[in-house]
Amino acid sequence: MTKPLAGFDRFYSVIPAGGIGSRLWPLSRADAPKFLHDLSGSGQTLLHDTWDRLAPLSGEQRIMVVTGRAHRAAVEAQLPKLHDLNVVLESEPRDSSAAIGLAAAILERREPGVIIGSFAADHVIKGERIFQQAVREAYAAADAGYIATIGIRPTESAVGFGYIHMSGPLEIDGAPTAMAVDKFVEKPDLETAQGYTASGEYLWNAGMFIARADRLLEELGKTQPELLAGLLELAEAWDSTRRGAVVDRIWPTLPKIAIDYSVAEPAAAAGTLAVIPGHFDWDDVGDFASLAKLHSGGRKSDLAILGQNARVLADSSSGVVVSQSNRIISLIGVRDIVVVDTPDALLVTTSENAQKVKAVVDALRISGGQDVL
Amino acid sequence: MTKPLAGFDRFYSVIPAGGIGSRLWPLSRADAPKFLHDLSGSGQTLLHDTWDRLAPLSGEQRIMVVTGRAHRAAVEAQLPKLHDLNVVLESEPRDSSAAIGLAAAILERREPGVIIGSFAADHVIKGERIFQQAVREAYAAADAGYIATIGIRPTESAVGFGYIHMSGPLEIDGAPTAMAVDKFVEKPDLETAQGYTASGEYLWNAGMFIARADRLLEELGKTQPELLAGLLELAEAWDSTRRGAVVDRIWPTLPKIAIDYSVAEPAAAAGTLAVIPGHFDWDDVGDFASLAKLHSGGRKSDLAILGQNARVLADSSSGVVVSQSNRIISLIGVRDIVVVDTPDALLVTTSENAQKVKAVVDALRISGGQDVL
Repeated sequence: MTKPLAGFDRFYSVIPAGGIGSRLWPLSRADAPKFLHDLSGSGQTLLHDTWDRLAPLSGEQRIMVVTGRAHRAAVEAQLPKLHDLNVVLESEPRDSSAAIGLAAAILERREPGVIIGSFAADHVIKGERIFQQAVREAYAAADAGYIATIGIRPTESAVGFGYIHMSGPLEIDGAPTAMAVDKFVEKPDLETAQGYTASGEYLWNAGMFIARADRLLEELGKTQPELLAGLLELAEAWDSTRRGAVVDRIWPTLPKIAIDYSVAEPAAAAGTLAVIPGHFDWDDVGDFASLAKLHSGGRKSDLAILGQNARVLADSSSGVVVSQSNRIISLIGVRDIVVVDTPDALLVTTSENAQKVKAVVDALRISGGQDVL
Repeated sequence: MTKPLAGFDRFYSVIPAGGIGSRLWPLSRADAPKFLHDLSGSGQTLLHDTWDRLAPLSGEQRIMVVTGRAHRAAVEAQLPKLHDLNVVLESEPRDSSAAIGLAAAILERREPGVIIGSFAADHVIKGERIFQQAVREAYAAADAGYIATIGIRPTESAVGFGYIHMSGPLEIDGAPTAMAVDKFVEKPDLETAQGYTASGEYLWNAGMFIARADRLLEELGKTQPELLAGLLELAEAWDSTRRGAVVDRIWPTLPKIAIDYSVAEPAAAAGTLAVIPGHFDWDDVGDFASLAKLHSGGRKSDLAILGQNARVLADSSSGVVVSQSNRIISLIGVRDIVVVDTPDALLVTTSENAQKVKAVVDALRISGGQDVL
């Protein structure tokens, strides 16, 4: 059994495993969301990668997964060491404030003073030691009362990510690189992103939050008192026979809001948010253009091929092919192409159009294509 | 029952149904060659279209089909009125001189003085009456002793077809537009093709040959005496119990040569070839670019969709999709694209690269992809 890393004894990992990843349709879909795919090339799912990354920090006994009821079996199959007590099932998606907040509330009840670190189930990270070091600093900042996040040093002027503005250094024991944050900004346009990158003052928001559970709930209560009340009631009933009834009554009523808005931005405005700049490779693999880039090592001329049984024959072609069938896939003279071949749906587009995939999913939803969503 | 058209009483239609159509892979393949697909949008196979076009000319009882043994069942399923005596099965492909020559030899034995018209099983023709009128003239020219062909008036400077050069008018009763031919030319380069089109003296070679069977065999004997001898021996045994043995002995030994080289070009050089300019729409649907053009009405902005159960969702895309599955096919921002979706193979290319499809087939043949050829 993996033990928690020294100095992380109050740490608990939380993995919200929720989003479908619509921009990765038809690979990602309701019954096979993004976190259940091997997008990193590791040979295992992103969820499994995430588990492996967190286990050395908190220990396997201290990783909580918040996921949809429909994904319980798949998640447990992926994570055989996931403890029953650490499976939090959502009857329906209520966004990240509810998911992470519920984990915080349950854990705080079980273990007052716990420090939780929440990390998405479907991101790709390379550079485990640098990641661990960043979490270590974030843990120290959390211990000092901050809502801590880890921001990623931009490697390009990406327009697909949110940014965090660093306003100056903080003096926190054990977190020498921690910076104060004064604002979060939404996905910028290219010019703005270029300004951000050039300034050196901005980091990508990777959705990693590390905080004392009680502090996180306290911040949440400032902006979302109703949500907090619901979560506390859920947590109080959670480890009892009343759980089912309380979940059925309360969960569907909880406000849907991203934790970035309910906790992180207000904490930044209040001066209680710290960011640790992360120098590891990170990608949220938000669309097929990211996937192509991730697997081509950034070379535009390359064709990335994903899929265990892929049989691809390519001539003068680049981009990415995802093969979920045993079919022969032949590409001739197609550049920056995206081909996603699944048993019941086929997508052909280009990297440039990768963000539009979500619109297709929306169109299918209203046009009778639900069988492939 | 369809009766032969008045004035066509000695006419016999011959349909060589042989070529796979490798440039249309993975749609066309060994067990599903081009002539067994609906490429015209008629709702039936090209072979069936061809039958329907010829039946009014010769009558259904007078259409002979020359095809591979492997395709017998499919051909007979397509053409329920095809008479057993009119099915000529090749044990292996020996090119068009052997196929058409054998039909000529069999029919000449059965009915001396017969006039045969050979038309490919896998071309698309629109304008039935104009076609019939051209065949009527070709029949008259054949009756006068010419090897007659029908050439197509170029509608563009195509580089994918062979051309026929008209050297001047002929005076043939019943064939007022018949022209003498002095040469056939292979697929030209673009500049040459443009010169041909501008001159008005060239027609596309559509591989349609109309001739008295005895004259066709006579011309064949001048350049291919060995082939002719084999065909005569086959024909002599054909309607007897000796057919099988003679076929097994002789067919595999016959020289493989296109009838254009063995008969048409020599006849042109000798001044015994007549061409009737055809003003109907004709396409050999040689590759997916032709298929796209055929179905988009020539508009580059259109997306042509072929396939009975096609479920295609397209955004800002043009080209052609061939769907042989019930899968959802989603295209986003791909122009001049070619997507061919079959149960075991997928092709993604562009119109511009359509001619390269054959190279993929060749590559698959040597790389273990035989299962999808």
